[in-house]
Amino acid sequence: MAERIVKVGLVGFGTVGTGVAKLIAENADSIAVRTGIRLKLACVVDIDMMSVRPVKLPDGILTDDLNRLLSDDTIQIGVETIGGTDMARNIQLKMLEAGKDVVTANKALLAEYGNELYRVAQKNGRCIAFEASCAGGIPVVSAIRTGLAANNITAMFGIVNGTCNYILSNMTSKNEDFCEALTQAQEKGYAEADPTLDISGGDSAHKLAILGSIAFGCEIALEDIYVEGIEGISISDIRYGTEMGYCLKLLAIGQKDEQNRISLRVHPSFIARDNALARVEGPFNAVSIFGSAVGQVTYYGRGAGMMPTASAIVADIIDVALGNSATTFRQLNLRPRSETAPFIEKIDNIVSRFYIRIMCKDRPGVIAQWSKVLADHQISISGAIQHEGKGPENTVPVVIATHPTMQKNITIALEDMEKLDVIGGKPVCIRIVDIPEDKD
Amino acid sequence: MAERIVKVGLVGFGTVGTGVAKLIAENADSIAVRTGIRLKLACVVDIDMMSVRPVKLPDGILTDDLNRLLSDDTIQIGVETIGGTDMARNIQLKMLEAGKDVVTANKALLAEYGNELYRVAQKNGRCIAFEASCAGGIPVVSAIRTGLAANNITAMFGIVNGTCNYILSNMTSKNEDFCEALTQAQEKGYAEADPTLDISGGDSAHKLAILGSIAFGCEIALEDIYVEGIEGISISDIRYGTEMGYCLKLLAIGQKDEQNRISLRVHPSFIARDNALARVEGPFNAVSIFGSAVGQVTYYGRGAGMMPTASAIVADIIDVALGNSATTFRQLNLRPRSETAPFIEKIDNIVSRFYIRIMCKDRPGVIAQWSKVLADHQISISGAIQHEGKGPENTVPVVIATHPTMQKNITIALEDMEKLDVIGGKPVCIRIVDIPEDKD
Repeated sequence: MAERIVKVGLVGFGTVGTGVAKLIAENADSIAVRTGIRLKLACVVDIDMMSVRPVKLPDGILTDDLNRLLSDDTIQIGVETIGGTDMARNIQLKMLEAGKDVVTANKALLAEYGNELYRVAQKNGRCIAFEASCAGGIPVVSAIRTGLAANNITAMFGIVNGTCNYILSNMTSKNEDFCEALTQAQEKGYAEADPTLDISGGDSAHKLAILGSIAFGCEIALEDIYVEGIEGISISDIRYGTEMGYCLKLLAIGQKDEQNRISLRVHPSFIARDNALARVEGPFNAVSIFGSAVGQVTYYGRGAGMMPTASAIVADIIDVALGNSATTFRQLNLRPRSETAPFIEKIDNIVSRFYIRIMCKDRPGVIAQWSKVLADHQISISGAIQHEGKGPENTVPVVIATHPTMQKNITIALEDMEKLDVIGGKPVCIRIVDIPEDKD
Repeated sequence: MAERIVKVGLVGFGTVGTGVAKLIAENADSIAVRTGIRLKLACVVDIDMMSVRPVKLPDGILTDDLNRLLSDDTIQIGVETIGGTDMARNIQLKMLEAGKDVVTANKALLAEYGNELYRVAQKNGRCIAFEASCAGGIPVVSAIRTGLAANNITAMFGIVNGTCNYILSNMTSKNEDFCEALTQAQEKGYAEADPTLDISGGDSAHKLAILGSIAFGCEIALEDIYVEGIEGISISDIRYGTEMGYCLKLLAIGQKDEQNRISLRVHPSFIARDNALARVEGPFNAVSIFGSAVGQVTYYGRGAGMMPTASAIVADIIDVALGNSATTFRQLNLRPRSETAPFIEKIDNIVSRFYIRIMCKDRPGVIAQWSKVLADHQISISGAIQHEGKGPENTVPVVIATHPTMQKNITIALEDMEKLDVIGGKPVCIRIVDIPEDKD
């Protein structure tokens, strides 16, 4: 097969950018044999030209001048790996306007400005490829777009943030409290110095916006997604949940019902301990997708890191070079929100099961009181634990699991419970998510 | 987006063909919205024109005359779902020569005649798409070809035959013996009336030939694959394995070492009970792939059945219609075997751990004798179980797990053991496969 040289420009020479440079350097030969495309890194742009990175670039291609990349018409593909939204948005716009296809892992940017960028790309006859933006090295974007194209996708459940999963895994298995586990994650390089975007659930929401828009075929705005992070999770709730047979994960959930109502949410979720997602540990990611024809399909792998992310970026570069990304990109539904009008279900109307922990005074009639509040709001109890307390002066934790009920019922019931003088403090409430299991 | 009508001809109106017709009928609208391609089933060919199938075809498109499909130049894509090799091969050749792209789930045909068909397709400027041939609805072919394109794939471990997995799952969890479990599988529709191809490991070998050729980029012949089936598995070995912490699966294994030596094998394998593949139950499939950049990626889902297989076939039809399959197909390495010369490692040279069960006479010196045989062949023991026997007249089973050793050492050691007069009958030997776990 005759080789075709495809020149690539890279903006951002940090961890992921270094991985991309490394992978192209190491695998250009085998990629050429397999695909007929010889990738050539022609330009690397970064303001930091001094730091030593664990890859040797060809002489003279490192520059701090973006214009060198933009004005080089032999460069067909621009890869943006600087992250963040403002500067990255500008760079991507400039690359598209300079006639380059764009490859990126920048989920924050796509979740926020994706539709603007997609339209500019289409106007300029270019494409944007973003496999690396969701679940790192796992090819889940292409799986949804291509592999499951014949399906009506009804639900997806994802562990898409390795930082949170690492923290929750360590809280569960090593009995660390949230702060210890976060510090551990930072020391291991799995959490940023400022971990807010991860632990708040924001990063998972970015990925859900991207995956949801592909799976459900409509524009998803970040405001459509209900988000709760893991900052408030206490180790005692993880322990009580374990006692009840659950494992705590931060899930990104997208569902579409028969009336095409879409619900999108990111929150801590107790899932059955024997569900496959419960076994996803540390910095790993997994996504379970339910299709009308295929049933359940689950993908598992590394959700972040230098080489896994580079693996997805270089796969996208190849796909762009082969011309397949352009075809797939044309399928993106870019009709404005006002035309497609997805019906996004409000969190209040979502039906879930709930884990509730209340601190009760240890005296007669307490159960009668809190159970009456739940009964008043038609909330049925599926399980409860009250370990023996130490006497009337102490409060004892009571842990309750409910049958499915609407969020708004729980919200009012918790407010009413908080008013009971036999209950100390604010009840803790964590959703229990029954991930359907496709069994024979 | 303007719609483009793409006409499809279907040969074979059995279970899978019916699923394809159903899926096109049900989802043509949503596929058109998402992809701009309106699929139209224009012709269905089957010798059985009388049986009632659970889908209503448009009037007049069912025929027993293949020529109607071949001579209709408006039909772009031919789908072959009749299975088997002889007739299917002829039909695919005719469709390619009539200028149609081919979509198929026929792993037996591709494993045996793939390269002939691929060459005819290329000669005629057509492509063959075969996502459905491996692991049913799980998009694993495209994952390897596209999603992991930047990786040097070093290993894959797959449960790719739902029949065998169903039988082994039931033997393990329901304590059924092989014949009971096989009958169960047949009653449930998971095994054919003649189950030979499945239980012999042949079907898994077909899939391994296809996946291996894509992953390792060379022509793989069926003769390159060492195959053992599950017919000889006894429930007592499953139980002893369980006692040692293992779960028995029929694995399809492809590995490439640093010298590019490729080993390909299908055989019953004891894997660690806490490995993700051990949780794959009943008719489900899963494939774990190891890439140089991405690490471990695992795919899980339904490996067979009417709608999961149809999901993959229709995904391929869409991909062909969009023109992407043609690009991917051109990447297939079709150089003749003599030029690429993959180095296929012989089974004798493969290093593995082994589970051995021998029936020993319960008398002094027995352990000394069998352990000396192993020691003589440099085989080290990693664990052993001998439950207390019932006296000198009986034989007791002794179960041994070895450290890694070459197949040829074990083969000779077993022959020597069989000659010992303290051992009754032929030793049972099952490979223990330590699937690497990509952990942080």
